Amino acid sequence: MSLVKKPVNGMKDILPLEMQIRDYVQSVIKETYRSFGFTPIETPCMEHIENLSNKQGGENEKLIFKVLKRGEKLRLDTAQSEGDLVDFGMRYDLTVPLARFYASHANDLPSPFKALQIGNVWRADRPQRGRYRQLMQCDIDILGEPSNLAEIELILATTMTLGRLGFRGFEVRINERRILKAMAAYSGFAQEDYDTVFIILDKMDKIGMEGVVAELAQAGFAKQSVETYMELFAGVQKAQDGISYLADTLGEYLEADVVSSMKEISESVNACKAAEFALVFDPTLVRGMSYYTGTIFEIAIPEFGGSCGGGGRYDKMIGNFTGKDVPACGFSIGFERIILLLLESGFEVPQQPKKTAYLIEKGYPGEKLAQVIAQAQEARKDGQQVLVVRMNKNKKFQKEQLSKEGYEEFVEFFNR
Amino acid sequence: MSLVKKPVNGMKDILPLEMQIRDYVQSVIKETYRSFGFTPIETPCMEHIENLSNKQGGENEKLIFKVLKRGEKLRLDTAQSEGDLVDFGMRYDLTVPLARFYASHANDLPSPFKALQIGNVWRADRPQRGRYRQLMQCDIDILGEPSNLAEIELILATTMTLGRLGFRGFEVRINERRILKAMAAYSGFAQEDYDTVFIILDKMDKIGMEGVVAELAQAGFAKQSVETYMELFAGVQKAQDGISYLADTLGEYLEADVVSSMKEISESVNACKAAEFALVFDPTLVRGMSYYTGTIFEIAIPEFGGSCGGGGRYDKMIGNFTGKDVPACGFSIGFERIILLLLESGFEVPQQPKKTAYLIEKGYPGEKLAQVIAQAQEARKDGQQVLVVRMNKNKKFQKEQLSKEGYEEFVEFFNR
Repeated sequence: MSLVKKPVNGMKDILPLEMQIRDYVQSVIKETYRSFGFTPIETPCMEHIENLSNKQGGENEKLIFKVLKRGEKLRLDTAQSEGDLVDFGMRYDLTVPLARFYASHANDLPSPFKALQIGNVWRADRPQRGRYRQLMQCDIDILGEPSNLAEIELILATTMTLGRLGFRGFEVRINERRILKAMAAYSGFAQEDYDTVFIILDKMDKIGMEGVVAELAQAGFAKQSVETYMELFAGVQKAQDGISYLADTLGEYLEADVVSSMKEISESVNACKAAEFALVFDPTLVRGMSYYTGTIFEIAIPEFGGSCGGGGRYDKMIGNFTGKDVPACGFSIGFERIILLLLESGFEVPQQPKKTAYLIEKGYPGEKLAQVIAQAQEARKDGQQVLVVRMNKNKKFQKEQLSKEGYEEFVEFFNR
Repeated sequence: MSLVKKPVNGMKDILPLEMQIRDYVQSVIKETYRSFGFTPIETPCMEHIENLSNKQGGENEKLIFKVLKRGEKLRLDTAQSEGDLVDFGMRYDLTVPLARFYASHANDLPSPFKALQIGNVWRADRPQRGRYRQLMQCDIDILGEPSNLAEIELILATTMTLGRLGFRGFEVRINERRILKAMAAYSGFAQEDYDTVFIILDKMDKIGMEGVVAELAQAGFAKQSVETYMELFAGVQKAQDGISYLADTLGEYLEADVVSSMKEISESVNACKAAEFALVFDPTLVRGMSYYTGTIFEIAIPEFGGSCGGGGRYDKMIGNFTGKDVPACGFSIGFERIILLLLESGFEVPQQPKKTAYLIEKGYPGEKLAQVIAQAQEARKDGQQVLVVRMNKNKKFQKEQLSKEGYEEFVEFFNR
């Protein structure tokens, strides 16, 4: 078998320039989230295949990289289907592993537990711009906090981080699964049809209201229901305060605490935000994952078409592991898209240390080399960056190349 | 299928206390290696299965987690063997992916290229103390530097890092594949038997010299060869300067530049080292990977039985990808073992930021909550860590728990 120079399809090597930005972004994320009391944790990149195939992950469950059983467990002769061949899978998000983690370790964790995870996830997706099959995610989650204090803190922390990375004028779109349901119920859709309706509604930003109407009609829903439904969306758009409009219109279909909670979130976030963004109520926001039970949110950055992160409340997921529900809410930053935007905008990492290169002529005697290195060691102890390299024949070119890497000072050691 | 609370067998969840230490150790590693001019890069966690099954990885190749093909590529009905089912594998080290990376991107990289990689690798090993099936490794490599400046800098950087983490009195054992070969040749072993001889020699620290003699005899080697071989090791042990003894004894079997290079490395490292450790020539050091071509080294920390890291020169590996050899030398820290040692020694991360907890009584009005959060936001902007949580009924217990997490200051907000 011959060796392959390229990385596997859809995954990428990360070169020094991008890596420098990634490290910087990670440090800003960690530092900001730490100031909110989020604590870093990690789970293995592989999960039990059962945990990943539980219908909680929506479309992502179709994209799992599966890991072959090993040794005697692998019985190729009697295997009937894929399921007989695999026992583990690569995690497709950080939320399902977090729920397993919490189910396993709740007794050793504070309550509420504020978790920060930075890690890779894998999806056997069709590769496209800004979408990779190995991607880094940065998630914060608050477990054990039933009130909207969780939502408020998650939105403030995420937006403070984006602000510190230089993003301005972005939107955080917010909705509530219970508002989605109330609007569907009011319009006369049957409960068993909600998922179908929401999947079509989710396409609003791509196919527009006309497209949604057409698809709902094509799916066989009553014309009256579709009309009522669309009037609701139009009403929100016209209203100055979409939530109040829905509260007035939907009446008893919508619980009062949903309305008051959405208003509180909006008021607190707007009063305390530390970044320039708009919190926007968006009744068409669906979010794919079927594990969400309450608020859902998504970040939209104007420079980037799609979503650059999102999250929501998933109060039932931990109960799937333990039999006992634990209130849970999380917000994930689309790390790869943030990096792509920063790279494209020519972002430069601030505060570089001083870089010095020592160039040593060929044939420089071994015993004197030790003195040069000792000198470098002294500078390094003070935090300076010192590169010790052999002097090339074309010294001018070598120094030009080193300058491009940020080396400002050169010290030359000649063999005489 | 029911859900599983435990992580997959042999891999572990990382809880806040350990995570804090891991983050700290990573920051020391990055900061120290940066001061030597090493540049962070990353490769995908999955590699082409061909690249991992090239007989370069020694025993590790038997431990690969293999990734099932997807979609139409997976043909279960016609699959004859494992090889038909998989296309990717999880990397078992960071060296093979680095060689692929360099083969792919050399034109965009400086020469010599000093790479720093911190990342997970996977081995389907039998789990045991300090050995996990997902483990983090920290590697530095210098590509394109043929002289022993590479070895000197790698040893100085790795030991400076260990010193900064508080390790004292450890050993860096060093040997040379060409010394291993010269000793075997001088003793009369045939070249085709070297690998068998070295595999037995590698057990010296476990079974002692008698055990090695017995196993060599059992393998059918001539008594005379085994005796001569053992006399060499005994001679090194007795000699004040093992390298000089071997140079004198082996004569023309050992190239003169191997001797002078080993002496230069030893002199430079001892003259410039920034940590308390001993560089020890160990002619029994073998290292499993068959890709090594020159110097090999290993870290032994007295508190820990086995090796805590190692590396060496592998001048032929990149040529496997490109057809053109590139001198290469690397040193890997056994991150997981370092963490285990620090955890067991009760290590505490220095310089924690100030931690304050705001406790908010239940029923605290939503409009006033915004003011509390705004106050927290101000403190956070100054770098303080502020946790905003609901006050529990048992406030005393809650504060005790928070104290354990390092919260020193409490501010209480009552509903009146």
